[in-house]
Amino acid sequence: MTHRIAVMPGDGIGTEVAPEGRRALEAAARRFDIALDFETFDFASCDYYLAHGRMLPEDWRQILGEFDALFFGAVGWPEKVPDHVSLWGSLLQFRREFDQYVNLRPCRLLPGIKSPLAGRQPGDIDFYVVRENTEGEYSSVGGTMFEGTDREVVIQETVMTRTGVDRVLKYAFDLAASRPRKKLTSATKSNGIAITMPWWDTRVAAAAEHYPEVSVDQFHIDILTANFVLHPDWFDVVVASNLFGDILSDLGPACTGTIGVAPSANINPEGRFPSLFEPVHGSAPDIAGRGIANPIGQIWSGAMMLEHLGYPEAGRAMLAAIEAVLDEGDERILTPDLGGQGSTQALGRAIAERIAS
Amino acid sequence: MTHRIAVMPGDGIGTEVAPEGRRALEAAARRFDIALDFETFDFASCDYYLAHGRMLPEDWRQILGEFDALFFGAVGWPEKVPDHVSLWGSLLQFRREFDQYVNLRPCRLLPGIKSPLAGRQPGDIDFYVVRENTEGEYSSVGGTMFEGTDREVVIQETVMTRTGVDRVLKYAFDLAASRPRKKLTSATKSNGIAITMPWWDTRVAAAAEHYPEVSVDQFHIDILTANFVLHPDWFDVVVASNLFGDILSDLGPACTGTIGVAPSANINPEGRFPSLFEPVHGSAPDIAGRGIANPIGQIWSGAMMLEHLGYPEAGRAMLAAIEAVLDEGDERILTPDLGGQGSTQALGRAIAERIAS
Ligand SMILES: CC(C)[C@H](C(=O)O)[C@@H](O)C(=O)O
Ligand SMILES: CC(C)[C@H](C(=O)O)[C@@H](O)C(=O)O
Repeated sequence: MTHRIAVMPGDGIGTEVAPEGRRALEAAARRFDIALDFETFDFASCDYYLAHGRMLPEDWRQILGEFDALFFGAVGWPEKVPDHVSLWGSLLQFRREFDQYVNLRPCRLLPGIKSPLAGRQPGDIDFYVVRENTEGEYSSVGGTMFEGTDREVVIQETVMTRTGVDRVLKYAFDLAASRPRKKLTSATKSNGIAITMPWWDTRVAAAAEHYPEVSVDQFHIDILTANFVLHPDWFDVVVASNLFGDILSDLGPACTGTIGVAPSANINPEGRFPSLFEPVHGSAPDIAGRGIANPIGQIWSGAMMLEHLGYPEAGRAMLAAIEAVLDEGDERILTPDLGGQGSTQALGRAIAERIAS
Repeated sequence: MTHRIAVMPGDGIGTEVAPEGRRALEAAARRFDIALDFETFDFASCDYYLAHGRMLPEDWRQILGEFDALFFGAVGWPEKVPDHVSLWGSLLQFRREFDQYVNLRPCRLLPGIKSPLAGRQPGDIDFYVVRENTEGEYSSVGGTMFEGTDREVVIQETVMTRTGVDRVLKYAFDLAASRPRKKLTSATKSNGIAITMPWWDTRVAAAAEHYPEVSVDQFHIDILTANFVLHPDWFDVVVASNLFGDILSDLGPACTGTIGVAPSANINPEGRFPSLFEPVHGSAPDIAGRGIANPIGQIWSGAMMLEHLGYPEAGRAMLAAIEAVLDEGDERILTPDLGGQGSTQALGRAIAERIAS
């Protein structure tokens, strides 16, 4: 069975790291005898927007809907297209219309990567953020009244649905139940955000009844971010709304020093639509075109993709190769963000070779 | 001229630290010849709620409106009263109805306090979070449809007004302009929260035109939290919406290791209503009643109060006394959270003595 993969490098360093992700995936495919068929698209980029007046072709649902997975680089180039236009017209649209309602993001202290936190060792930090990925605070409902006057009022609605919240909670509880520590932390703010968040808490409590083996706690988002810094070892699976998950899944990797290497999976668990795999980092216009972007986030996202497609062993081998290359710490190979003088390609090749062997 | 101060210790450790705050204030008042007249109230506490069915007496506006400042401990005891009831019925109501639209929170690495961040020294981190404190994401507008069914939809509206945003931006820009670095950072999320936040960005840009001497940048809240951990030295004045400011003003103190000692001021800059001064920490039911709570957040909030009342020198002396006692590091005096075996009172007394001398 051949798996069809749509590659969308996107903007900026996305176009530099996506080929390295593919190189690593091809190495894993050869070693584990997986049939991957890649096709690369130039849409979902700001250059495409400048040429066509839109981020995606009109028939993007048909084009992409036939693939088994979407392998995404990074989108956004504010000098060309405002971020909310480029993002809502591509990535956020995929997440919503392909119903990728789980955004899964590992936070893991890797060997050879310096954590900004004092005294933390690999193994100390190893948790997942499970982010609701289709609704909540990322709504397009609202508007402006008295526009342009002193009385201007701008309203944006947070919309949560029982269907939307319960299904992501189920995913998070299942994940927690499958892990040795069996612990789930809910991100809330029910003391301040007084309508949606107390209700979120009741849904968490309702879900918890089906998982007596999972121990559950909750923190308000303000103190939760503090605890990511003070006690990152407390966490196993953290489940959060769209916005809170967005924040926690940048902060978590920052605490492990891996903001440039963190991966993510935008998952439609039922497989009705293709899932999307992308590094957490953005398109980084400031370093684009210089061949120094770190490709690990993209490669690690590829590992999550293989796992999702049913090849957990291949996924683990890819992550092990990343860890091995980091552990060796060869400065000629590591990219500047890791303290080396290597290039995107040099690091990508080293990891691909390690996967192959 | 006598300044009338309403003391509301509130719940839990609030009742333990408030007297130490008062002790320190009295020492400063004697030394700097300031006339302070304190009156203590038992409302704005969960015990008051249990006795009266509400958090505040009906005529709280008249009672408190006559004071020059409110000196607040901490409120909340979820086992007695749900947080959203106790908070919306007291603290959040003060902020809103006394129009304390600026929530000012210093993040400062103090001597003798261990930062969880590797290699940071006192002086490295010293910035303010200016939080909008009356509107935004903390709205009570919204509700539930199809309640209790599978189709349940819960909506909460974020409401921003030009008046509300412009005035807090003005405060933040004025503060930045008064500081040596003259730098202002705006917390946004205009790539995802696509109605209110792009508009927030335009208001920041409009305000910036009046402050050519202030250098301005902005970060999306996700990467901003990451940068608090990775580059806390980048920041001088950070301005944020109600929710983002809430998050940043817990995370910032966490990065300086001072979550238990951070102060805050809820300010009505025009002085139409009394401003409120409170530690950032909560009521901490888990350690309440044991006499081990750290009183520094409360005392430091008192320093901010004196500054607000027009006695910057006295405020500085109080902070200097805190720093001196921390710097000495006497374990018999420091509370357990600081690695000592001291009590709330021992630490409070030591600081008050230092202020007096
Ligand atoms: C207790 C809670 C409602 C409050 C807030 O969210 O504003 C607190 O976290 C704070 O920062 O003062
Ligand atoms: C680019 C932006 C819209 C996006 C988000 O907020 O979801 C990004 O931060 C992410 O986390 O994938």
